[in-house]
Amino acid sequence: MGQENQRREFLKKAALAGAGAALGGGMALQSATVNAQELRHAIQSRGLAATDSTGILREWTFPRRPLGDNDILIDIKYSGICHSDIHQERGHWQPQQYPQVPGHEIAGIVAAVGKKVTKFRVGDKAGVGCMVDSCMECYSCTHGEEHLCERNETVYTYGSPQQSSPTGISQGGYSSNIVVRDHFAIRIPDSIDLQHAAPLLCAGITTYSPLMRSNFKPGDKVGVVGIGGLGHLAVKLAVSKGAEVYAFTTSASKVQDILGFGAREVIVVDTLDKLLPYNGQMDYVISTIPYDFDIASYASLAKPFKEFTQVGMPIRGQLSVNNFLMIRNRVNLNGSLIGGIAETQEVMDYCAKNGIHPQIQIIDAGEVNDAWNKVVNKDARYRYVIDASTI
Amino acid sequence: MGQENQRREFLKKAALAGAGAALGGGMALQSATVNAQELRHAIQSRGLAATDSTGILREWTFPRRPLGDNDILIDIKYSGICHSDIHQERGHWQPQQYPQVPGHEIAGIVAAVGKKVTKFRVGDKAGVGCMVDSCMECYSCTHGEEHLCERNETVYTYGSPQQSSPTGISQGGYSSNIVVRDHFAIRIPDSIDLQHAAPLLCAGITTYSPLMRSNFKPGDKVGVVGIGGLGHLAVKLAVSKGAEVYAFTTSASKVQDILGFGAREVIVVDTLDKLLPYNGQMDYVISTIPYDFDIASYASLAKPFKEFTQVGMPIRGQLSVNNFLMIRNRVNLNGSLIGGIAETQEVMDYCAKNGIHPQIQIIDAGEVNDAWNKVVNKDARYRYVIDASTI
Repeated sequence: MGQENQRREFLKKAALAGAGAALGGGMALQSATVNAQELRHAIQSRGLAATDSTGILREWTFPRRPLGDNDILIDIKYSGICHSDIHQERGHWQPQQYPQVPGHEIAGIVAAVGKKVTKFRVGDKAGVGCMVDSCMECYSCTHGEEHLCERNETVYTYGSPQQSSPTGISQGGYSSNIVVRDHFAIRIPDSIDLQHAAPLLCAGITTYSPLMRSNFKPGDKVGVVGIGGLGHLAVKLAVSKGAEVYAFTTSASKVQDILGFGAREVIVVDTLDKLLPYNGQMDYVISTIPYDFDIASYASLAKPFKEFTQVGMPIRGQLSVNNFLMIRNRVNLNGSLIGGIAETQEVMDYCAKNGIHPQIQIIDAGEVNDAWNKVVNKDARYRYVIDASTI
Repeated sequence: MGQENQRREFLKKAALAGAGAALGGGMALQSATVNAQELRHAIQSRGLAATDSTGILREWTFPRRPLGDNDILIDIKYSGICHSDIHQERGHWQPQQYPQVPGHEIAGIVAAVGKKVTKFRVGDKAGVGCMVDSCMECYSCTHGEEHLCERNETVYTYGSPQQSSPTGISQGGYSSNIVVRDHFAIRIPDSIDLQHAAPLLCAGITTYSPLMRSNFKPGDKVGVVGIGGLGHLAVKLAVSKGAEVYAFTTSASKVQDILGFGAREVIVVDTLDKLLPYNGQMDYVISTIPYDFDIASYASLAKPFKEFTQVGMPIRGQLSVNNFLMIRNRVNLNGSLIGGIAETQEVMDYCAKNGIHPQIQIIDAGEVNDAWNKVVNKDARYRYVIDASTI
């Protein structure tokens, strides 16, 4: 844990430095695409919203809050499609308030900044991931873990109650623009395209954070279970950090792609007995499967006393664990939720610097409902990204 | 992990030393209570057997195998009642072969030894826990983890297929005697009574092994969930090792007893919100609950990145885990299965030396079916032990 503690210390400092910079503020309210008068009132946005638990998305024009002193307005250029969007809009996790615009892999250009904002200037590339606010005062929030706000004041990017939002809830990134507190926006380096940056803001950080926490060493065997939007990035990230990656998928048609991502071996798990030769072999395993499954059989892939991390979130959050397997495999089963803002910036910078790009398919707004069905049917290769100019 | 590795090394050496002593053999076949001729044939035993999945126990006379060169014959004096006996005989885990005699907390007096046995002499106090044989050749078996035999040749004390048994399966300790390979019998020190020694052979080792592996420090907060046969021993063991113990029970009537066992605090969990003030406070948590329950709510008692160990085995082994809680609590959930022979000897010696006794109620054979119902209804205080002379 020594190295990991040092890294956490770094993240904490980075988080505090960011807070300090924000306090330094003083830049005038400005915008290239909207005038100052407009920014003092609700800002119009065009989006794709679910209106009930069928989750069918329809065009919807809605108001966002006026630009606050610490806010930036982002003209959205690209928005990734995450399986979580589908689960949430279809009410798989809990009942939802509608209309609701999903989307938490948002990349665009800063169109306006509030007068206290120093982190961004108009024209900067900026991204928004899974959260847009938190208390910013508790231990977690001041230590780089805003997603774990101890006052439970984390505002997720869509569907969270949010007093400042004219619709009563936060509205996400399948839309033309977003107003967001500057701290919660991520700088996107010049060396990465917006369309490749977008999926890093959920799929990237959600896999990067637990991979880094696992503290695997170069040459260690890392298992990745479920090779979709998150899983394929987990493969690329683990490979780039020196792991020998074993990818477990149910889709035989993905094998060549995954080998291309750098995996040492791809195991097509059409039946669970395909797992057996790998039992107890992995130094770390991460699972992205967003449904309940035979988690203990997969956990058994890890060596005794090593970890298996479940980042996919099943319906109602319910996972079934066979304890007969767990008492023998002695694996530590845990979960992980995205990552903090400093760490999200870290994965963005890391991927930009090292040329780690998600494999994406860009689609128009009119293709979104079809794309959602393809995601559920495991037909995405590997991340759909909406061209927001078509919304 | 340094200290733990050292302790594992000690256990490995202890295991190998035991094997070496057994190889040294040469003592003549002898018995105080049976003659040599009888020992060469099947040995009669009186037991209490389940005959179907109602689990109702009835008197049954059955043959045990003849005494082999490495076997000892134990005249059973006391036999503890474990909730696992009930689950297994009622077919809660998997279908069973009947008639089947349960019982894996066995304490008695050695009545005969095979000619190669050096570990015991006639008249010694001896115990048998949850297993009676294994391959004794694989890495696990030669490193003190016979319960995790890599060839899956661990023979559990009752209900396991066993070629040498005249009934085809191993038969347990609710009986007048048992024939067991010497390596799998535990020496019971003079300083502990047989009736107090018996429950250590399952309840003791099952809680001791993960408690030791957790490597908690004196003053650390240890949570114990479910204060029955296993849980009350977990409290006593953790207290004796210097932990500040928090006991979580649904039985308000147990509070004073548990404080008497040395717990710092007893929390009566009549509703789950009683857990909230203790969320994220424990350095380690062990749960003995033998049914499915809201495991993630209890796992949240542990500090982030610490462990929660589930040793109770629910129906069909199925546990339901709410991943919404796990992604926030970041606790490592794991299971643990009894412990190896060297470690079982260790907990026996430790309890004998330190006066750690289970709190028992001695019952006659005729009371066993009633006692089982009381165990299920949480009315045991805290371990029923059968006086085997009444069988």
